[in-house]
Amino acid sequence: MSKEKVHIFDTTLRDGEQVPGCKLDTQQKLIIAERLDLLGVDVIEAGFPISSPGDFTSVSEIAKVVKEATVCGLTRAVKKDIEVAAQALVHAKRPRIHTGIGTSDSHIRYKFNTTKDKIIERAVEAVKYAKSFVEDVEFYAEDAGRTDNEFLAKVCEEVIKAGATVLNIPDTTGYCLPEEYGAKMKYLRENVKGIDKAILSCHCHNDLGLATANSIAGVQHGARQIECTINGIGERAGNTSLEEVVMILRQHPDLNLDTNINSRLLNEMSRMVSEKMGMIVQPNKAIVGSNAFAHSSGIHQDGVIKNRETYEIIDPADVGVDESSIVLTARSGRAALAYRAKKVGYELSKRQLDVVYVEFLKFADRKKEVADNDIHLIMELSKLEIENLA
Amino acid sequence: MSKEKVHIFDTTLRDGEQVPGCKLDTQQKLIIAERLDLLGVDVIEAGFPISSPGDFTSVSEIAKVVKEATVCGLTRAVKKDIEVAAQALVHAKRPRIHTGIGTSDSHIRYKFNTTKDKIIERAVEAVKYAKSFVEDVEFYAEDAGRTDNEFLAKVCEEVIKAGATVLNIPDTTGYCLPEEYGAKMKYLRENVKGIDKAILSCHCHNDLGLATANSIAGVQHGARQIECTINGIGERAGNTSLEEVVMILRQHPDLNLDTNINSRLLNEMSRMVSEKMGMIVQPNKAIVGSNAFAHSSGIHQDGVIKNRETYEIIDPADVGVDESSIVLTARSGRAALAYRAKKVGYELSKRQLDVVYVEFLKFADRKKEVADNDIHLIMELSKLEIENLA
Repeated sequence: MSKEKVHIFDTTLRDGEQVPGCKLDTQQKLIIAERLDLLGVDVIEAGFPISSPGDFTSVSEIAKVVKEATVCGLTRAVKKDIEVAAQALVHAKRPRIHTGIGTSDSHIRYKFNTTKDKIIERAVEAVKYAKSFVEDVEFYAEDAGRTDNEFLAKVCEEVIKAGATVLNIPDTTGYCLPEEYGAKMKYLRENVKGIDKAILSCHCHNDLGLATANSIAGVQHGARQIECTINGIGERAGNTSLEEVVMILRQHPDLNLDTNINSRLLNEMSRMVSEKMGMIVQPNKAIVGSNAFAHSSGIHQDGVIKNRETYEIIDPADVGVDESSIVLTARSGRAALAYRAKKVGYELSKRQLDVVYVEFLKFADRKKEVADNDIHLIMELSKLEIENLA
Repeated sequence: MSKEKVHIFDTTLRDGEQVPGCKLDTQQKLIIAERLDLLGVDVIEAGFPISSPGDFTSVSEIAKVVKEATVCGLTRAVKKDIEVAAQALVHAKRPRIHTGIGTSDSHIRYKFNTTKDKIIERAVEAVKYAKSFVEDVEFYAEDAGRTDNEFLAKVCEEVIKAGATVLNIPDTTGYCLPEEYGAKMKYLRENVKGIDKAILSCHCHNDLGLATANSIAGVQHGARQIECTINGIGERAGNTSLEEVVMILRQHPDLNLDTNINSRLLNEMSRMVSEKMGMIVQPNKAIVGSNAFAHSSGIHQDGVIKNRETYEIIDPADVGVDESSIVLTARSGRAALAYRAKKVGYELSKRQLDVVYVEFLKFADRKKEVADNDIHLIMELSKLEIENLA
């Protein structure tokens, strides 16, 4: 049975770029957009055309060069925004306008100072107007995570009637728990008339560290698009990490869901975005952190060496990492030391290993990491005692 | 109704420290342990005493200085390990020995080359032996995430009979989905005889970005301890982030669970651990990243200024951050510019703001971040046009 497809909507260049200090110029955005297209994302959200002249140019240039992916521009539910986005997307092979408005009580009351009926009216108008320019119109219900389900379903119904092809249900504040977010998707699948005409989309923020789990809960309950960014970058604690949701679906075939992503390009993509944006990826970042496949404790190294599958569930090569690196520290066991020593030319007997291991521990207690070169030094320090064994 | 308590078991100094390049010396560990005690963690796992002379000394010194928290030492299910741990913990006010063995097929077959019965026998022996030294004995069923539930329940039953007070159910490879991990806890709550005599504990790894969600699923289904580290540090993609699980429980009062953590110390604790270990926290890290409370996009800034609650769900002061910082970039809207301009002394009319905003956008398109000093320059650049307005 073939798996159901989850669309990957990459917003690295829009929501991802809304990070203090991470502004990219048009040239940098073009390079990233071309790589995202190669990576196999379904949609590239290229920017928010009305927000600045630079953003308009970037969206317009990206629309010209992207070959496969849909190119999307963000707007508010405002005519001028939609006109400018349509203009920026005029050369796109597959253009999409992404428009929407806040639907939670907090947004309706404090941000727009209006009523629920007026919000629906503005939503419908915006979708219809966007539809007059492009076939593919995505609607976002901002702060959907804190919008009551009944009103949210009503908004969805009306914008589908107006022609929306995708319904973005953002957890704007990153507040939802996975079961709540999943239940929201389930409610919409079951209660919105005409829901089969549109794709439900997850857009999660990571303020409580739950963006990835919420997105997965969303697709388990009927969503078929995930909005995400490379390295999970984005405002505040960031967005859902593209690399995490892609690899979860791939590592859990029982979910019967998959994406079009060529995972072997993930590691390179992560580095490129990190460098261009000047946004560091912490070593313990899932999938793309520099330590993601590194083992240092003795117990684990022994296990990895005996059978990779004991500790690793992802083959590093599947995400473009050459080999899981074995790093020696004072926590490393004899097996790891013997393995590394053999790699640099020393085949040690059990008794020899005992001697060398004592020297190794003294050395490692002083030095944080023991490199291959250090092994030669440790062998020198153990030389006399090894000779005494013979 | 008072909330049920979830115990926080901090393993920053044991599992957290198993990171290539992050070795701490005893003095550094002592400083961190004292701060963890102030933070209000229930248990400090101080090290793996048999693993190296340095580790033994650290556990022993930490045991002497910690005033409130339980101090815990890790062992394998090996007599010598347990003896050495007991010795290291001899001065602890509340000592705990943490012993255990792998229970998944993969571990039993490849790592130990033995049978299920033999695994239970070794587990029971280890717990009994640890119990001869201390009252509080935690048992870990390594790779429980991939152990079949029936066998896992049997192991739990037997070690409870042997005297185990806490049962650690680790998702060693970080492979579980939240619903699976939650279901495992539920199964154990419902099927292990004598389960009321022990606390179930979550120990999750972040290989797929799900450690936090899995731990929360665990406590929603009956676990009452979470094993975690500051900043989520740890081998590979790290462990569950202490700051994330603590704040999720606090932000979701409906879960009716809470911890003893003084959250106002979280930000300082995070920085201290990051500095001492040389492990960078990425800006978009939940709760403790430098951007966690920073807003740069125009839409969001406008919302935050109108009503903080529109976008932020955590008051930054609750985690020890002074104020949510408003950073200006080319994505910032008029409201944010006006807010910041006012802070540095310029009260702008709507028409003046329109003029200054155009200058601001040109400036911001070239420069990644616009600092307060830059606003003076932008005002200078706008001077002529502002005068023309008058």
